[in-house]
Amino acid sequence: MDEFSFINAIKQKAYRQPTLVKGIGDDAAVFRSTSDIVTTVDTFVENIHFSLETMRPFHIGYRVLAANISDLAAMGAEPAFYLVSMCIPKTWNQKALEEIYQGMHELASLHQMDLIGGDTVSSDRLMISITAMGYVPKDQARFRSDAQPNDIIFATGTLGDSRAGLEILLQGQECKSQDYYIQRHRLPEPRVALALGLQEINRVALNDISDGISNEANEIAEASGVELFIIEDSVPVSESFHQFSEEQQYEWKLSGGEDFELLGTVSKANWPRVQEIADQTNTPIRQIGYVYEAEEPRVLIQTHGETKQLTKSGYTHLK
Amino acid sequence: MDEFSFINAIKQKAYRQPTLVKGIGDDAAVFRSTSDIVTTVDTFVENIHFSLETMRPFHIGYRVLAANISDLAAMGAEPAFYLVSMCIPKTWNQKALEEIYQGMHELASLHQMDLIGGDTVSSDRLMISITAMGYVPKDQARFRSDAQPNDIIFATGTLGDSRAGLEILLQGQECKSQDYYIQRHRLPEPRVALALGLQEINRVALNDISDGISNEANEIAEASGVELFIIEDSVPVSESFHQFSEEQQYEWKLSGGEDFELLGTVSKANWPRVQEIADQTNTPIRQIGYVYEAEEPRVLIQTHGETKQLTKSGYTHLK
Repeated sequence: MDEFSFINAIKQKAYRQPTLVKGIGDDAAVFRSTSDIVTTVDTFVENIHFSLETMRPFHIGYRVLAANISDLAAMGAEPAFYLVSMCIPKTWNQKALEEIYQGMHELASLHQMDLIGGDTVSSDRLMISITAMGYVPKDQARFRSDAQPNDIIFATGTLGDSRAGLEILLQGQECKSQDYYIQRHRLPEPRVALALGLQEINRVALNDISDGISNEANEIAEASGVELFIIEDSVPVSESFHQFSEEQQYEWKLSGGEDFELLGTVSKANWPRVQEIADQTNTPIRQIGYVYEAEEPRVLIQTHGETKQLTKSGYTHLK
Repeated sequence: MDEFSFINAIKQKAYRQPTLVKGIGDDAAVFRSTSDIVTTVDTFVENIHFSLETMRPFHIGYRVLAANISDLAAMGAEPAFYLVSMCIPKTWNQKALEEIYQGMHELASLHQMDLIGGDTVSSDRLMISITAMGYVPKDQARFRSDAQPNDIIFATGTLGDSRAGLEILLQGQECKSQDYYIQRHRLPEPRVALALGLQEINRVALNDISDGISNEANEIAEASGVELFIIEDSVPVSESFHQFSEEQQYEWKLSGGEDFELLGTVSKANWPRVQEIADQTNTPIRQIGYVYEAEEPRVLIQTHGETKQLTKSGYTHLK
């Protein structure tokens, strides 16, 4: 494939961000900002992170950008720019590649993001690496180290849906609301609106749920030096989620990745306002536990009256 | 390999950039700036862009970051941050990977750059993608579209050295100054000092020479809508470069990539000052031609009294 004509095919016709000085077309892109700049990179490899068995190229593009936007949301940032680096095997044709970019463009235009750079090289296996950038008001980035004792813990949306969708696609088994689960897997919606709405709250600890809340809750506990106490029955799941086996429900809602929901903590005083903001931004939100002082940072989970430790790997051990 | 312990092994002990608010350790990094921000991404794949046959892992790391810094220099920007995304095959051990990072660290510390993010995933083939960011004073980024008729064309350093070094490594043949050529291939030095020195000049068109000047000169001609006229004998080469065959010399100096020198144009009035700045920053610099008005953008090269067109692919065609 001719890289030059490919770049032309995917290049935007106009800039969306007023802060963009120079997009694609020179040695590098240029932008300016008086806000703080947030940046993150995520890399995805075919048949490890995604597969044509379960999604179209369009979904692949949509989902890899969603993962990056979710990281920006978890910092409280407004998405602005992205750069795409791809390794492309000869077996992929230009049409399929353009479809990947269309998936990215679809989500990017929802968030007024500009594609400002990239690199495409040949390799044996499709790899997509995205660097995303966003803006957050000065000193208002949301850190996972900001949880404090007496905070309440909240989660957005419903958890485990993406993992359920993957399973449905892999097993080919019919089940209730299967289109819903498949859509959640293929076209996840990062919680940007809530993250921006929360900018008025002076302190919120935030993580996006990319690897399951067992992992994200432990990251907040470690970074903040606190104990997170989660009540299992409060962890939000979809109405038809109970159709899956108990083991699946437990595994998927706590350790199923890529829901791209938000896990956070906020003071009890601010919790009512957070709920109002969630309401205004059409974001389902629910309290799932409390933050306590801790000698050793850890995450506990109360399940059927029993309290266990929830580790990063998602397994629980009796105390 | 445990990603967490690996991240700890490569994590910096302290931030170098005063504008860095949050480095590695949250969903994303945060920085702030009143300057314009320049950003670029470059991706390298084992046995396509580099090989253990011709370099140590240390050189690989050094060189991939050098390529990115060179893009920043070509924009007139001061390097500040980088993010590293890697696909790692199981055959690579942790020691070799750390050596790659040491190569990057070595060059990063020369330029006071901070590593602010990254992602490592498994794959069949080693792939390294770097996103680099730098600062340039407001509205002073250097564009390839800024060349004007009556400008002089200049090039820094000597060209073709990296390609000669690669050939020496591949053929295993002894030759004069071979350590020099090998070093130029393995440890290229992007022209940051000159690029920053040139900030006082009000207009300079700049490209870095990553794919050979035949390519870069055409990019400037196209972006600026001008004709670049290059005198072949003026193209700077190393003293011992004449030991190679005429064909090799011609091919390597015009199309040999990865010298990471700068190609630029500047008004005749400013050329003496540019030479002074080059002198102050220990940057060899030489005029290699002139810019003319053109109906169709193009690059001409005068070789032994004969004038030919120099195309992107490096081949010349009689007019």
